[in-house]
Amino acid sequence: MKQTLHSIVFIGAGNVATHLAQAFARCGCLVCQIFSRTEDSARTLAEQVGCPYTTSTGSIISGADLYIVAVKDAVLESLIPQITARSPQSLFVHTAGSMPMDVWKGHAARHGVMYPMQTFSKRRPVDFSAIPFFIEANNAADAGLLKELAGRISGNIHEATSEQRRYLHIAAVFACNFTNRMYAICEHLLKANGLPFEAMLPLIDETARKVHHLSPAEAQTGPACRYDENVISRHLQMLSDEPELAQIYELISKSIHHSMKK
Amino acid sequence: MKQTLHSIVFIGAGNVATHLAQAFARCGCLVCQIFSRTEDSARTLAEQVGCPYTTSTGSIISGADLYIVAVKDAVLESLIPQITARSPQSLFVHTAGSMPMDVWKGHAARHGVMYPMQTFSKRRPVDFSAIPFFIEANNAADAGLLKELAGRISGNIHEATSEQRRYLHIAAVFACNFTNRMYAICEHLLKANGLPFEAMLPLIDETARKVHHLSPAEAQTGPACRYDENVISRHLQMLSDEPELAQIYELISKSIHHSMKK
Repeated sequence: MKQTLHSIVFIGAGNVATHLAQAFARCGCLVCQIFSRTEDSARTLAEQVGCPYTTSTGSIISGADLYIVAVKDAVLESLIPQITARSPQSLFVHTAGSMPMDVWKGHAARHGVMYPMQTFSKRRPVDFSAIPFFIEANNAADAGLLKELAGRISGNIHEATSEQRRYLHIAAVFACNFTNRMYAICEHLLKANGLPFEAMLPLIDETARKVHHLSPAEAQTGPACRYDENVISRHLQMLSDEPELAQIYELISKSIHHSMKK
Repeated sequence: MKQTLHSIVFIGAGNVATHLAQAFARCGCLVCQIFSRTEDSARTLAEQVGCPYTTSTGSIISGADLYIVAVKDAVLESLIPQITARSPQSLFVHTAGSMPMDVWKGHAARHGVMYPMQTFSKRRPVDFSAIPFFIEANNAADAGLLKELAGRISGNIHEATSEQRRYLHIAAVFACNFTNRMYAICEHLLKANGLPFEAMLPLIDETARKVHHLSPAEAQTGPACRYDENVISRHLQMLSDEPELAQIYELISKSIHHSMKK
C-alpha cells in the first residue's frame, strides 16, 4: 500500500467539493478529474483546479489513489456501485456528516469518511487551517493516510465514529444552519423597516465570541429568559402578519424559558 | 440647561445597569447612587462603582443630572411615577429596546431612551467601543446631551425613533437570543453524546463572519436548503425523545426551505 494519497478524483462539484478540490490542488495534490452530472459545475471546478472533467460515470478515471465523493446523500447511495466497481484497489471516502461509513460496505474494500465540519458557500473563500476534519476508515492504515492528507490543509484533525459524526452533524445544523436562519429573519425584519442589517453585526459577533468563554446556557439573555409577557406579546403582535415567524418566535422563546428552569 | 450630563443615578442593578454603570464610572462620570429592590445586586454594583445604594424608592437622590432606568419592562411602568416626582428638572431615560419613549409622558418633562444593542452577562466584561447605542429624546438639546454621554464609551451612536427601536429589538432577539439558544441546543446534543462543544467554535465563528460578507439569505447552507428528506428524517428520528427540539428542528427547516423558494 502507498505511504501517501496522491491522485484524487472528485465526485461532485458542489460547495464542499469545490472548496476541498481547490484546497488539495493548492497544496500540491494531483486532482486528476472532476465528475458531476451538472456540466457547468463540473467544467467550472475543473478549470479552477486545472484538470479534466466528465459528466458520465462510465468515463470516471479508474485506479486513482482516492475518490472523494461530495454529493447529496440521496445521490450518494445510487452512485456508489457505479464508481467503485472498476477501481478495486482504490480508497473511497464520502464527506457527509450524517451518512454512516457502512454505505461503502460490499462495494469498496478500502473505504471511509472525511467530514469537514464547516459551512461552504461557493462565493466565499475558506480558510481550512482551523476547520475540524472528522476521519473514519475501515482499517487503521487508511485512517492514517486520510489524517495525513487532511492534515496538509487543516491543523484540526480528529477520528470520529459514524455514531459520533451523526451527532456532530445534527449539532452543526443547529449551530450553523439554524443560526444563519435567525440572522436571515433578523435581516428581513430590519430591511422591511428601512434599517440596515450591518447595525446588527457587533451583536452577532459578540453572541458568537461569548460562547468561547461562557457556556451557551450561561450566556443566554433576552426577554424569554424571564418570559417577559409584556415584551413577548408585543413582539408576537409585530409578527402577526407572518405566522411562520410568529410560530418560530413563540417556540424558541418557550424553549429558552424551559431551559432556564432546569 | 447644563452642557453635559455629569451626575447619574442608576435605577436597576441587572446585567444592563451593571455594565453601563461600570463603563460610565470608568470614563469619569459621577455615578452617585444605585437603586435596586434586590439588596445584593444593589450593594454589589454600588461597591463596584464606588457609590451608595438604596433599596427604597423614597431614598433615591433627587435632582441628579440623569436617571438611567434599566429594569424589566413590567417594573419600569410602575417605577416611573415614584422616581420622577421629586426631580422635575432632571433628564430620565430607560434602556429598553421595545419600550416606547412615551412611557415617560406626563411624568418627566425631559425624557428619552438610551438603548445599547448588545447582550450583557454579568460574568463577561463588555467592550463598549463598538456597541451601537440608539438614542431618542423629547427635545433636541437632550438628544445631543445623551449622544455626547454615550459617545464617551462608544463610537457607534445613532438616533432612532421608538418605532425603529422596536424593530431593532425584535431583530436583535432573533440575531442574539435565539442564536444563542441554537448554540445551547448544539451544546446539549454534543454533551449528551460525549462530544466537546469546543469542537463547534470554528463553525460558529465562520457562520458569524460569513454574514459580514454575504447576506444571510445568500449564506444559507445545510440539508434544509434543498429539503433533503433523507437527512431531515434521520435527524428528526434522532430527536424523537425530545419533542420540543424536534419541533424546533422541523419548523426552522421548513422556514429555510420556504425562504429558498422566494
